[in-house]
Amino acid sequence: MRLLTFRSTAGTGIGVLDGDEVVPLAADADLPSSMVEFVALGPQGLARAAAVLATAPRLSVDEVRVLAPIRPRNNVMCVGKNYAEHAREFAGSGFDASQKQAVPEAPVIFTKALSALAGPGDEVRVSDDTTATSDYEGELGVVVGPGGHKVAEADAWSHVYGYTIVNDVTIRDLQKRHVQFFIGKSAATYCPVGPVIVTADEVDDVTALRVQTRINGDLRQDAPVKDLIFDIPRLIAAISAAVFLEPGDLIATGTPAGVGIGFAPPKFLAPGDLMQVTIDGIGTLTNPCA
Amino acid sequence: MRLLTFRSTAGTGIGVLDGDEVVPLAADADLPSSMVEFVALGPQGLARAAAVLATAPRLSVDEVRVLAPIRPRNNVMCVGKNYAEHAREFAGSGFDASQKQAVPEAPVIFTKALSALAGPGDEVRVSDDTTATSDYEGELGVVVGPGGHKVAEADAWSHVYGYTIVNDVTIRDLQKRHVQFFIGKSAATYCPVGPVIVTADEVDDVTALRVQTRINGDLRQDAPVKDLIFDIPRLIAAISAAVFLEPGDLIATGTPAGVGIGFAPPKFLAPGDLMQVTIDGIGTLTNPCA
Repeated sequence: MRLLTFRSTAGTGIGVLDGDEVVPLAADADLPSSMVEFVALGPQGLARAAAVLATAPRLSVDEVRVLAPIRPRNNVMCVGKNYAEHAREFAGSGFDASQKQAVPEAPVIFTKALSALAGPGDEVRVSDDTTATSDYEGELGVVVGPGGHKVAEADAWSHVYGYTIVNDVTIRDLQKRHVQFFIGKSAATYCPVGPVIVTADEVDDVTALRVQTRINGDLRQDAPVKDLIFDIPRLIAAISAAVFLEPGDLIATGTPAGVGIGFAPPKFLAPGDLMQVTIDGIGTLTNPCA
Repeated sequence: MRLLTFRSTAGTGIGVLDGDEVVPLAADADLPSSMVEFVALGPQGLARAAAVLATAPRLSVDEVRVLAPIRPRNNVMCVGKNYAEHAREFAGSGFDASQKQAVPEAPVIFTKALSALAGPGDEVRVSDDTTATSDYEGELGVVVGPGGHKVAEADAWSHVYGYTIVNDVTIRDLQKRHVQFFIGKSAATYCPVGPVIVTADEVDDVTALRVQTRINGDLRQDAPVKDLIFDIPRLIAAISAAVFLEPGDLIATGTPAGVGIGFAPPKFLAPGDLMQVTIDGIGTLTNPCA
């Protein structure tokens, strides 16, 4: 099932995307209006959504504005340096103040502020970045289903609700200056997510998906998810070894080689640039820079 | 005004602590039941609370369970190495994998998972830490009032709603191993906050307050807030230079010298230890280790 959050003349709600039609889940008054609450319902929510899908009225996707599919209650967690070729390009860029080794020995986990979330089509305001060092990072996002603590790798897939796309837009100068990544990763509008959450049952083999990022049509990043250094079960186990994961938590799994600072000279984002992150089977997350 | 979140036989709500009495704000049906929504009301909410305080029925504080005063919608942000003497003890401990210089040139900001929040009296489950390197960090917490972006230092005080106490409990081994601090800082129960939020108008000079941490009665940390390397206006300006602050965001301002890894050999927390963080004018945040 392809789930989305949208705004229509009737307000903001959640729904199912079926082809180019949106089926609002508000047709079932017992379903919540926010995605994070819907995800918490698990298979029970999906069963009710399937019933709605079969019977409820539909809107054209052109009649709605698609928003970020979810705002976690808890955290947007991100993984640094989780593709080997990217880890080397980042180490060589001079922008990593945090670590000696290029390829990490354990997952490097940081967060983006929830107030940085943006939806598909939303402008990312790189003109607010006075350092003019803004950079894109296309990534596969994992939406956590059942919460939990100390999840074993062998059980990790049962905690995956679905997948989405995250563009982990970064101000490189602040990422370096503040050493811990949070500030450089969390500027307002710097966390586009979407366009949909695809439930895990619709993805045969997530490691076969490719993450592709285009800037103004130019293919900059292109790698399969199987190139992750720490795969999805290892990430869930490593994070939940300490952190209590909550339903709807979002884990951006890391970005492949080809970010702006991988080029010499760096190719930073400028107002007017168009960013497109594509993952086959999920869709394309498009955001203009302003 | 001294604000708290509590559970009583009537459920969970917010209130004002007046001496050893709690005045539930539910007496005004137009006030919200969560602190983060109440903080968002700003002075208007406080004026309504003052009216409730004058007229509403009271409970003894012994009749309620005091909870963490607030769960931010957005983030619990923390400042690393913000007291010079602590920055040096941390550098000397061998547990900082993230930076060469001891005293940072710019504020080092990271987050704790919201799912790590705990209330006064709650057990901090250090027995869950298989590395047995858990450590305390008593800190002044700043509660953000009006949200905002790119707040100037000169305007920063107008964004401070009030103050509380945060114990930034940390698993040192994970803090070092994962380089970015998030995992080591975010174990379930490792973010005790409280007991109350004291509104800014009740604190004449926050820099004159002292942060004191006792472990089993032994005074380990004792420093005035004026010793902060980056003071409160500089922190708010540095964070909001990128991050859009939201009402109810919590900023833990950093910990003084005297943490467990400042001793040789380190004095790590063990089940049965009692942690007490005291800031005059706010109170004492007490948490047993289990």
